Amino acid sequence: MSIQKLQNHIIVRNEPFIEQAENLKPQLNATIVKPTSIVAIKHDKDVIHGWKSEYVTPASTLANGVYGKGDSVILDFGDHQVGYLSINIRPEGSPPDAPLKLKLTFGEMPVEIAEPFENYNGWLSSSWLQEETIFVDVMPTEITLPRRYSFRYVKFEVIDTSPKYRVVFEKVECRAVTSANINNIQTISHQDKDLQKMDEISIKTLADCMQDVFEDGPKRDRRLWLGDLRLQALANYETFKNNDLVKRCLYLFAGVPDDKGKVPANVFVAPKLIADDTYLFDYSLFFASSIHDYYFATSDLETLKELWPTAYKQVELALERLDENHILIDTSDWWSFVDWQEGLNKQTPSQAILIYTLKQVIRLAQELNAPEQNTLEDRLEEIETAAKTFLWDKQQQFFISGSERQVSWASQIWMVLAGVFSKEENQKLMKHLLKEKPEVGIATPYMYHHLVEALLVSGEKEAALSEMKTYWGGMIQDGADTFWELYDPGNKDFSPYGSHLINSYCHAWSCTPTYLIRKYDL
Amino acid sequence: MSIQKLQNHIIVRNEPFIEQAENLKPQLNATIVKPTSIVAIKHDKDVIHGWKSEYVTPASTLANGVYGKGDSVILDFGDHQVGYLSINIRPEGSPPDAPLKLKLTFGEMPVEIAEPFENYNGWLSSSWLQEETIFVDVMPTEITLPRRYSFRYVKFEVIDTSPKYRVVFEKVECRAVTSANINNIQTISHQDKDLQKMDEISIKTLADCMQDVFEDGPKRDRRLWLGDLRLQALANYETFKNNDLVKRCLYLFAGVPDDKGKVPANVFVAPKLIADDTYLFDYSLFFASSIHDYYFATSDLETLKELWPTAYKQVELALERLDENHILIDTSDWWSFVDWQEGLNKQTPSQAILIYTLKQVIRLAQELNAPEQNTLEDRLEEIETAAKTFLWDKQQQFFISGSERQVSWASQIWMVLAGVFSKEENQKLMKHLLKEKPEVGIATPYMYHHLVEALLVSGEKEAALSEMKTYWGGMIQDGADTFWELYDPGNKDFSPYGSHLINSYCHAWSCTPTYLIRKYDL
Repeated sequence: MSIQKLQNHIIVRNEPFIEQAENLKPQLNATIVKPTSIVAIKHDKDVIHGWKSEYVTPASTLANGVYGKGDSVILDFGDHQVGYLSINIRPEGSPPDAPLKLKLTFGEMPVEIAEPFENYNGWLSSSWLQEETIFVDVMPTEITLPRRYSFRYVKFEVIDTSPKYRVVFEKVECRAVTSANINNIQTISHQDKDLQKMDEISIKTLADCMQDVFEDGPKRDRRLWLGDLRLQALANYETFKNNDLVKRCLYLFAGVPDDKGKVPANVFVAPKLIADDTYLFDYSLFFASSIHDYYFATSDLETLKELWPTAYKQVELALERLDENHILIDTSDWWSFVDWQEGLNKQTPSQAILIYTLKQVIRLAQELNAPEQNTLEDRLEEIETAAKTFLWDKQQQFFISGSERQVSWASQIWMVLAGVFSKEENQKLMKHLLKEKPEVGIATPYMYHHLVEALLVSGEKEAALSEMKTYWGGMIQDGADTFWELYDPGNKDFSPYGSHLINSYCHAWSCTPTYLIRKYDL
Repeated sequence: MSIQKLQNHIIVRNEPFIEQAENLKPQLNATIVKPTSIVAIKHDKDVIHGWKSEYVTPASTLANGVYGKGDSVILDFGDHQVGYLSINIRPEGSPPDAPLKLKLTFGEMPVEIAEPFENYNGWLSSSWLQEETIFVDVMPTEITLPRRYSFRYVKFEVIDTSPKYRVVFEKVECRAVTSANINNIQTISHQDKDLQKMDEISIKTLADCMQDVFEDGPKRDRRLWLGDLRLQALANYETFKNNDLVKRCLYLFAGVPDDKGKVPANVFVAPKLIADDTYLFDYSLFFASSIHDYYFATSDLETLKELWPTAYKQVELALERLDENHILIDTSDWWSFVDWQEGLNKQTPSQAILIYTLKQVIRLAQELNAPEQNTLEDRLEEIETAAKTFLWDKQQQFFISGSERQVSWASQIWMVLAGVFSKEENQKLMKHLLKEKPEVGIATPYMYHHLVEALLVSGEKEAALSEMKTYWGGMIQDGADTFWELYDPGNKDFSPYGSHLINSYCHAWSCTPTYLIRKYDL
């Protein structure tokens, strides 16, 4: 155990945990993928973002083309890929008497190929936009770009050669990588083709996010976040069963708590493990929740025992935020995530997440015969009662949140998942929610997952299926090869970052249909 | 011997010669060079190109700076460098939650740092402009850029980080490379400080062009040209005496003649030896001239014997261009180089170069007791007589060239160097030239070299020194660290390529002051 003071926060390094995580580092499985076709990206106001890809000719004809200054070509790899691009470049004409200046643009979606990155003006760093400008001094040559990209389309633009030569691109390949064990998948053959497709795309999404760790998105942030991990792990138990990767990620978080013992919302793993200086109430609790899910998926008592103190600590720290009425103190800062929904008050959904997690932790305490069990049960009762007393608005028949008594979808959904009421009361609440449609809605697939699961646990299977088909089914109809970080069927250009160029179109927290379908036998 | 048909021309590969050249490949000597200062590039209408560098602070303070989006810094390495840049980059603030996008711009001269490459609109490929935009995914890190640059200044521009972190640049270094053996230099301590400086800068220029081969310029074209090689070799015999590098280059040219036996104007050495499809009358002859100079510098009879057939072949082929009057047939295409001077007619200077080379080749034939000696002597007399008969304008007292009877500096200079007249007549001609100053002048340091040497061989030492001081001395006054590819004291923005951004500011054919000073005891 060593203490490391970063510029902004203190990290206590638990070296045995970090070593354990290091030992579980997965081998990546590589597949060589070739482009399928040369395409053109065309404007079409009726498709999402206004851009669609149109087949031009098979990719096998690529080497017939000779490209000089100002020429370009767009390759389509046929599906979403995460990996390393290689190209053979051959000069045509006189020997190359000047370097080749070549620009490469990678896109998960046609919009990224069509709209110039130069015009990007969003809130996240432009350095996430996937492009390279390379100079090639010696040709013919084989080039393997050192960085990993997440893409389906790649555009080659010859910025300059010289008047004496042009170039031919040959043997373009992507060495696609994942740590997912594809062979473990039990294929399902669903009557409902929509669900079948949703299952397949979920699995592809999950696989592309499974690398050294469970990444949130292979394009952006390429990072291990606790909120995403919890959902990825749930989908993984139903599909790849790469349980050691979950274990590795749990040890990574447990390896770098702060000086109070709180685990961070996310960690960086390169050049070495570092905790980010972001701490979120719900994400820290989801460490305990993820241990619960892991233990009941694997029966790995050893790991449960080793990580129990860290899991319990997250609950202890969360309980410190309760006021004298056992209600979470609300603040306007970035204290709990819940969803990207603008204006969402986090108090009640966070109270529900605390109850949800407390119940899971009590089950773990039972398994361990842990002395904390009784205290936890007492606290749970106080907190659950408080929620019903102070946060339930009898008149409106909704949970309210914050000093403005906000009625949000998130509050109802999480209270249902927390099981504060009976199944019948929950069913009534969910029906009421779908009927009344409060204004403060849902912004992300992450929150849609919780909506669908809340419907399922309260017996509203048909409504759940309907939501899935509208939401994930909508993405498929809009051209998703993998499920997107963000999707609003009512406002398809939505991005909380100010530009849809920076959105991630393969995002872990969107991969849960396979979990929902398989877990709930949909 | 194998025959290789490239797309545009036939090359006969002489494998033993190529192997000989390969065996002579030099070791590069590396030196670690650190930047001396942080500078600002300021506009100043009174300096060349309108830009000058101003000292800001010592480079040792670089690591005190923290650079975020939009920030930049310019480092000055204190002198011209050819080599590989490495940088340590350390993040400051939160852990880097997005890649660093960093633009690097390299400049031999301040203008390259000051004027955006985006605006470049010259005739040579923009791919020669030295810049890189790199993405750094993991920090802290040590980066060594894989390409070689030719520069004194480097600008770091942070295009983007993220709002959560900025970067610090540490341990910026250039691994400067040359194949020149610096220890072989006999330093001179000249009374005349201008000549002393000229000698030093010549040597630095030559060293920076000595790599795997004698390059014309390490920024552009980084290539072995015969015209440049001849002058570099002359300077080398007086300084570094890396005679094996000359030998290697001669074998490279002899390794890839065309199907008639003609050596190309330049060769590419990577990925393997290829002759360019450019053939120039004067440059092919200079192969023979370079053998002459090499032999008399080294007494390497073995090499002379082996390369004699190739040398003799260049003369044979040149003689085929003579008409029935023993005068070279003139054409308007790219058949002979001589100089970049616009509108220059190449006939008479090329006739003179033929005579100049014939005389050298006859001396080699004498050494070898070669049977071709008598034929060569007969031909020389015919050609020299023809030159005096048909190309000398008695009335004007100048050589004329082409159907328009052009009076150019180049014609007079080369006829003097060819020794068509006696030393006294040459002196008279050179005086006449300097007095009359014909309109068709001199465009390059390459041609200035020949002007100075023509003055020296005709006994006009004072005039020669005066030209050197105006020309190379002018470059020094205008800030040259190494001598430039192009310089016109009367029009300092001159570039035959449409932009001074693309000019090479360290160019082999400008390195001859050290040869002139040392050879002629100036």
